[in-house]
Amino acid sequence: MNISLTSLPNFIYLPLVDFIIMGIIKERVNKLRSFLLEEKLEAFIVPSTDPHFGEYVQDYYKCREWLSGFDGSAATVVVTLNDAALWTDSRYFVQAETQLEGSGISLMKMKNPSTPSISEWLKSTLKENSSVGIDSLLFSKKQVDSYELSLAPLKLRFCKDPFKQIWNNRPPFLYSEARVVPLEISGDSTEAKLKKCSDALGLNLNNSYSKEYVYILSTCDDIAWLCNIRGSDIPFNPLLYSYLLFGSVGTHLFVSLESLNKGVKKHLESNNIIVHSYNDFYNFIQNLDPGMVRIASLDTISFEVFNLINRSGSIFVSDAIPGGVVALAKAVKNDIEIAGFRRAMLEDALAWVKFWMFLEENLNGNNQELTESLLANKIAEFRSQCADYCGESFSPIVAYEKNGAMPHYSPDVKNPVVIKRESFLLVDTGAHYYYGTTDTTRTFALGNLSVEQKRDYTMVLKGMINLSLAKFPKGTRGASLDILARGPIFSIGKLYMHGTGHGVGHNLCVHEGPQSIRMEENPIAFVPGMVTSNEPAIYESGKYGIRIENILLCKRWKENSFGEFNCFETLTLIPIDKTAIESSLLTVGELEWLNSYHEKVFEKLSPRLSSSEQKWLAEKTSNI
Amino acid sequence: MNISLTSLPNFIYLPLVDFIIMGIIKERVNKLRSFLLEEKLEAFIVPSTDPHFGEYVQDYYKCREWLSGFDGSAATVVVTLNDAALWTDSRYFVQAETQLEGSGISLMKMKNPSTPSISEWLKSTLKENSSVGIDSLLFSKKQVDSYELSLAPLKLRFCKDPFKQIWNNRPPFLYSEARVVPLEISGDSTEAKLKKCSDALGLNLNNSYSKEYVYILSTCDDIAWLCNIRGSDIPFNPLLYSYLLFGSVGTHLFVSLESLNKGVKKHLESNNIIVHSYNDFYNFIQNLDPGMVRIASLDTISFEVFNLINRSGSIFVSDAIPGGVVALAKAVKNDIEIAGFRRAMLEDALAWVKFWMFLEENLNGNNQELTESLLANKIAEFRSQCADYCGESFSPIVAYEKNGAMPHYSPDVKNPVVIKRESFLLVDTGAHYYYGTTDTTRTFALGNLSVEQKRDYTMVLKGMINLSLAKFPKGTRGASLDILARGPIFSIGKLYMHGTGHGVGHNLCVHEGPQSIRMEENPIAFVPGMVTSNEPAIYESGKYGIRIENILLCKRWKENSFGEFNCFETLTLIPIDKTAIESSLLTVGELEWLNSYHEKVFEKLSPRLSSSEQKWLAEKTSNI
Repeated sequence: MNISLTSLPNFIYLPLVDFIIMGIIKERVNKLRSFLLEEKLEAFIVPSTDPHFGEYVQDYYKCREWLSGFDGSAATVVVTLNDAALWTDSRYFVQAETQLEGSGISLMKMKNPSTPSISEWLKSTLKENSSVGIDSLLFSKKQVDSYELSLAPLKLRFCKDPFKQIWNNRPPFLYSEARVVPLEISGDSTEAKLKKCSDALGLNLNNSYSKEYVYILSTCDDIAWLCNIRGSDIPFNPLLYSYLLFGSVGTHLFVSLESLNKGVKKHLESNNIIVHSYNDFYNFIQNLDPGMVRIASLDTISFEVFNLINRSGSIFVSDAIPGGVVALAKAVKNDIEIAGFRRAMLEDALAWVKFWMFLEENLNGNNQELTESLLANKIAEFRSQCADYCGESFSPIVAYEKNGAMPHYSPDVKNPVVIKRESFLLVDTGAHYYYGTTDTTRTFALGNLSVEQKRDYTMVLKGMINLSLAKFPKGTRGASLDILARGPIFSIGKLYMHGTGHGVGHNLCVHEGPQSIRMEENPIAFVPGMVTSNEPAIYESGKYGIRIENILLCKRWKENSFGEFNCFETLTLIPIDKTAIESSLLTVGELEWLNSYHEKVFEKLSPRLSSSEQKWLAEKTSNI
Repeated sequence: MNISLTSLPNFIYLPLVDFIIMGIIKERVNKLRSFLLEEKLEAFIVPSTDPHFGEYVQDYYKCREWLSGFDGSAATVVVTLNDAALWTDSRYFVQAETQLEGSGISLMKMKNPSTPSISEWLKSTLKENSSVGIDSLLFSKKQVDSYELSLAPLKLRFCKDPFKQIWNNRPPFLYSEARVVPLEISGDSTEAKLKKCSDALGLNLNNSYSKEYVYILSTCDDIAWLCNIRGSDIPFNPLLYSYLLFGSVGTHLFVSLESLNKGVKKHLESNNIIVHSYNDFYNFIQNLDPGMVRIASLDTISFEVFNLINRSGSIFVSDAIPGGVVALAKAVKNDIEIAGFRRAMLEDALAWVKFWMFLEENLNGNNQELTESLLANKIAEFRSQCADYCGESFSPIVAYEKNGAMPHYSPDVKNPVVIKRESFLLVDTGAHYYYGTTDTTRTFALGNLSVEQKRDYTMVLKGMINLSLAKFPKGTRGASLDILARGPIFSIGKLYMHGTGHGVGHNLCVHEGPQSIRMEENPIAFVPGMVTSNEPAIYESGKYGIRIENILLCKRWKENSFGEFNCFETLTLIPIDKTAIESSLLTVGELEWLNSYHEKVFEKLSPRLSSSEQKWLAEKTSNI
């Protein structure tokens, strides 16, 4: 029997299949235990990542999902000879509870005060001096350092991937075809980008390394940006599995050679990028000149790679910028990238207008029964009418009523949820265009809202507007700005547990660092050219969810005797549903923001709309 | 000739005396150089602190001031065989430039991008392997660790105080008389306080130490709080120079025995505090049982003391709470301390009413020429009418017009500044009462304000009100709240460089940690019972300064399905000058806050006022 849990996530709600699958899970865990015995290990830690530490991974790397049956995006499984447990965060408690039932794997609810950390649990479960195995390609150097500290007196042992031997019918490692991002879209050549990075390194590493150095890069989005190429090795992320070295040795790209057609090869060659096969990387770095200083970010380099480059006699310098110098350079968009973002926002808004009109027509006219899944497909369909559309930037969230209270909900084709003319519908979806990436959330008021629902909607909007209006001096970090969005929600005794803002890639990952707008400290300051989401929310568990999300561009606002100040410009061009606004709760300044935002939306979109669409949009964007 | 710079700070404006004094400074620096030669050192670092790392020090410890002639509160002097330089921050650039002129000591402007750090400067000045001396009692363990890293390959050498031999007529180390804080004022016995601290240690140190431990405490305010005693060894801080040990060995206080009268001795004895002479401390800690775990905060323990306790074979555990467990326990005020704060705020407000009336009468009636110094004395005089007043909590700031733009300005008796009926007068002053400490800033509009001045005043007020109105979930840090106060000021392209809020001691230091409200990250969360200042500002260099400061109490606001939320209550009861408010710039919610604050001020103060004072206050607190 060959049931892939990955391809059949919904089966597990059927009791009989449940029973069969739970047997399969137990068998898989026992296979890992046999590996432990062979290797004289007492435990093994299985993370959700791949050697490149991105947010999404190819099926080949879904070992944790195959092993446990839990298909949420974030979790770590730990298997000992007698026990097994899975750690995940509050987004996934309900789902993990269902999916782990009967599997013999205990659920560990992260951030719950009574939940032990992985190290605490292992120390209480195993004898002193026991060995805990990990695949050293799947843990960053930083994570390993932290585990070594917290696991003592237990010992960490570094192994090769055990799933190569225990996972029968493991999906193959697939390579996609690469494409070139032309200069008219990227705005900067590889040479110019490398210069930015090496200049920044010179400054930040304080010249404590010699002129001869090599920078080792494992993050596929940084590599795609540097080389001005894209691929589709990874779902929702237009990337190629790759490594890159740059510095005194020149620029070396390690990627599947089958991915590269003639045009891409020519592009790389003309940018002085020497191409190697992906698998040659490990050999190549072992043979680097020992006198050459090695530089990498400990956040994003695997322990395996760190070990291969950190040879005795050679100097290793840690890139002190959180996430690394390339990620920071990539986060500051150039003028051409910004122009691309504006274009992508316009194209995306046209699809949203069609989507919203479709929603209204079918909800009111009873032409067609609307389900979450149908709507999720519909927005993709409208987007695909643009020739420059190249796919969704993440799995779309179309969440009706109480489903909206789950921030990472995905519509379920097998359990269709019918949309009615009441409560809220939360739609969070984004797309890649060749020249930019979008990410927008709108919450539609479908009818019969309570006073509390209207107040909540207005407070979320107020928070979103407050952050949009922020002015702040050079050097301000996202952690300082966060409460502008959260404050109005706190003021009614509510809160949301996720971040307020993440960076957005330029036809790259929709979640991009190193800047963020969160409660938690992050030392990265906002710089003109950085793009961020702005997405406050309220989730009333079991009832409804509200989130309103725009994309902002950080810009220079003014310079005077006090110094330089920055501000945000809203890039998103999609109307905000006014139905649920309780306007007495907004200040004059907030109302002015909303009206002027809507004026801009109408001005930018109307030339591309039919007259009936224009009429519809005029109503949606009229002043309040 | 025996000129003490400490006693004659104003002399230095007279050119002849300048010349003489600059000769004296050069001679002093040369004396330190002779010490360097004797000790085979190439440099010496002289900080502003004493072995207890408080904000104020006794004259005995003003070595940096004696050596350099610069009498600002914060600076570090570094002397090499050929050079000398002084590092200070932007508050003191003007003052330091004047005071260092002709001294041969260069001014190093901190946070100026072109200014080297002390370590960078020393590395560029000295040969490799040179030795840099420091007095190991005056640097915390943490500072020494950081210097050792940044100075390499230079070597740090630990010396005894060189000023013992080079400072002729050094002021004696003075001890004051101690007094007891009765339980009706402290609210908690030493035993209860020690229990809080040892419980918190048990949790935070994760039981990684044995039951046998000793905690070493160097911070005089923490010791005064733990022992429920006060003194006056240090200006403006009601403290005794002291060390304390607690834990398995019992509680040992090291303090000048002459400070303790019979009553204090009895109080300490009945609280099971064993008293030793201050100077016996160093001996005592060297002879601690090696099996006993030592715990201390690396932030506040001197390198000298750390070395004495960190013997081979014994375990040292670093207190992980920033500033230490005692400071955190002390920061959370109990109900009786809070009641004391309320009483202190009321008494202080009565003095401010008299002060403000005096200001108005004399400004309008021309009875008396008003100077900054006269007003500084006047507020102290009105305060001293309260029997419970026990001194100013810091050097009063009475700053007219352009002087207000210097955040740490002190009125200068020798250069009297006459107050006129125009621009702003900024008054920032606080007092100690037996049951609490105050700190308030009011900016008075004296006449002829420009549109910009009124807008600036209103924006500062708006920031102050925004922070006062904050609601926030449990776990929120001051760094998250900071922009509530700063945001309105940023919105007009202005800013202030200092923190928004500091903790306030209970008849202890007016600046107290570990919580703060600043742009900079500080991991300490606000907890109900914490007291903080709220003091946004605008400084227009050479023109005027505006600052409005109230004291807030953090309180539990509500608890619901989202968790626990906190809020602030304003403790200060002093009217805010309405003259400069441009009310169209305030929201309805902000105006409501102001009116209801003023109603409360009138309600609380009026029973203690004469009918003419009541009439005056009614006008000052009337609705707008």
